[in-house]
Amino acid sequence: MEERASYQKGKDAKEFAIGIDIGGTNTKFGIVNHRGEISNKGEIKTTDYKDLDNYINALYKQLTPEIEEVGGMEFIKGIGIGAPNGNYYTGTIEFAPNLQWKGIIPIAQLMTDKFGVPCTLTNDANAAALGEMMYGAGRGMKDFIMITLGTGVGSGIIANGQMIYGHDGFAGELGHTTVIPGGRLHWGTGLKGSLEAYASATGIAITAREFLDERFKEESLLRNTPHEQITSKTVYEAAIQGDKIALDVFEYTGKILGLALANFVMFSSPEAIILFGGVIKAGDLLMNPVRKSMEENLLPIFQNKVKLIFSELKESDAAILGASALVWELKKEKEASES
Amino acid sequence: MEERASYQKGKDAKEFAIGIDIGGTNTKFGIVNHRGEISNKGEIKTTDYKDLDNYINALYKQLTPEIEEVGGMEFIKGIGIGAPNGNYYTGTIEFAPNLQWKGIIPIAQLMTDKFGVPCTLTNDANAAALGEMMYGAGRGMKDFIMITLGTGVGSGIIANGQMIYGHDGFAGELGHTTVIPGGRLHWGTGLKGSLEAYASATGIAITAREFLDERFKEESLLRNTPHEQITSKTVYEAAIQGDKIALDVFEYTGKILGLALANFVMFSSPEAIILFGGVIKAGDLLMNPVRKSMEENLLPIFQNKVKLIFSELKESDAAILGASALVWELKKEKEASES
Repeated sequence: MEERASYQKGKDAKEFAIGIDIGGTNTKFGIVNHRGEISNKGEIKTTDYKDLDNYINALYKQLTPEIEEVGGMEFIKGIGIGAPNGNYYTGTIEFAPNLQWKGIIPIAQLMTDKFGVPCTLTNDANAAALGEMMYGAGRGMKDFIMITLGTGVGSGIIANGQMIYGHDGFAGELGHTTVIPGGRLHWGTGLKGSLEAYASATGIAITAREFLDERFKEESLLRNTPHEQITSKTVYEAAIQGDKIALDVFEYTGKILGLALANFVMFSSPEAIILFGGVIKAGDLLMNPVRKSMEENLLPIFQNKVKLIFSELKESDAAILGASALVWELKKEKEASES
Repeated sequence: MEERASYQKGKDAKEFAIGIDIGGTNTKFGIVNHRGEISNKGEIKTTDYKDLDNYINALYKQLTPEIEEVGGMEFIKGIGIGAPNGNYYTGTIEFAPNLQWKGIIPIAQLMTDKFGVPCTLTNDANAAALGEMMYGAGRGMKDFIMITLGTGVGSGIIANGQMIYGHDGFAGELGHTTVIPGGRLHWGTGLKGSLEAYASATGIAITAREFLDERFKEESLLRNTPHEQITSKTVYEAAIQGDKIALDVFEYTGKILGLALANFVMFSSPEAIILFGGVIKAGDLLMNPVRKSMEENLLPIFQNKVKLIFSELKESDAAILGASALVWELKKEKEASES
């Protein structure tokens, strides 16, 4: 809370950042102040713009009246973008499988050219971690790991109070680390036994289908849904009604996720792991086995120390907030290098 | 090389750090200049001193004439210690299983009281990583991971040009991360399937014994050595003579180590992984399968980028150099906070 308060003083009082969340389907944006309050939200359909220049022109057209409303471009300190495969160092989106722009896309440069303010880019999970550090559950923490459990599993790592981008800007792909060598084939990457293959919403649905096949003699509420239509939500709804197979799916998922988290803890020794995304709606059904498995797989010096907490940001706002946080980060770096 | 050169100018020309490597059996020390040259080495037997005060008095007595030789205490900027379970933040050695001093030992404070200069402590593998960054294969790198493959498996992680200590000072216990869930029971920690259980010298010897038992009909040079006397060195010597079982031991070890390294790469995206310790004497016998397995388990965006290199420091000097590097690190931090 201290950080928040200090931002309201002096020249920071009327400064804004534009946060943009580029997703495969939609692009959401908002104008954000230092307190993490989003005004002037909007969105366009990413899929409507095969041509990148048209896309940027559309964003500019949509954002211009919003920018006027907060006082004009002179109050906009910069633009932050969270995007799949966004490279912080180069400002490029590189070979993003879910976007229609192929190859290496110099999006930050194009945005700067169009808007006339600095633009910074990172991947979506890193942006979420920055947002959490600045406005959410990570406030005041210098070491935490953010894990996003949605259709996929993303992550962002904060250590020594800084985002870990690594040598080439792609650090923190924890969803793709192997937890079960030779395990489940990942539908997209071709890797075997990666965390995402089990702990994503997609992975949970696959586990449910596998359990239903293996235990074909056993009754389950999940059999009321056609096999291919089972989602992690179906599993959750069956589990809260006490369905044994559905409960076992969360037990199994939690065991694997907890093991992976233990490995992450022994890597960077975070104060907390912050979880985010649709899958965490399962609450204790998932978190109880996660916590148990994590503690079991930790060295004693790490046991019963690491907080497992949920994001404090609204899911609909988090991506925009996180992206906007890049702007203040950039500003801090600049001030530090100028002083 | 640039960093080295700059240290020789002006007031830095005659500054020294004391580096101390506390091991279970021996304690080695040396006086180190900014260029990483060790003068005035010495050692005492750690096991000779059940009483910590006697131990510190013995170190003081041994070091005093050495300190005089470089010009006296006024030229000593500080003391750096590498020790098992050394906590950087608190300066304490905590519950180290291989040392006879039990519980939490405030060694840095006791050393400062005795010598009258600042004393900084970290664990031995972190010290090795610092030494590598300052004087060895990590010079000029901002992101690398150091893996020590000896009796155990240790690690030190450098990201954004800084050592990652984590929230409580114990980050980088990569030897204890799980690679094979439910796998080999670790003789000391009780964890199952940890990297150290396979990739340490101890683990390699266990694998050899297991292979000899499983493939009892197959001839092997390893059968010339009594079962319990087989070490990683025995395996290496048999492997270079083309022994099939010995070669398979390195293949198996390399596959597991490579998988673990891929996970580490997807965590912090290092420029290089620097390997150190007795096990790397196996050279390509180990490294070829390591590299192959690492690349196979990486996402494409990480493939064929990460250097796998060996330490450039003499094994006998590395621990002292690494410990001494803590002193210059501390100094840098101080200068930064004072400016």
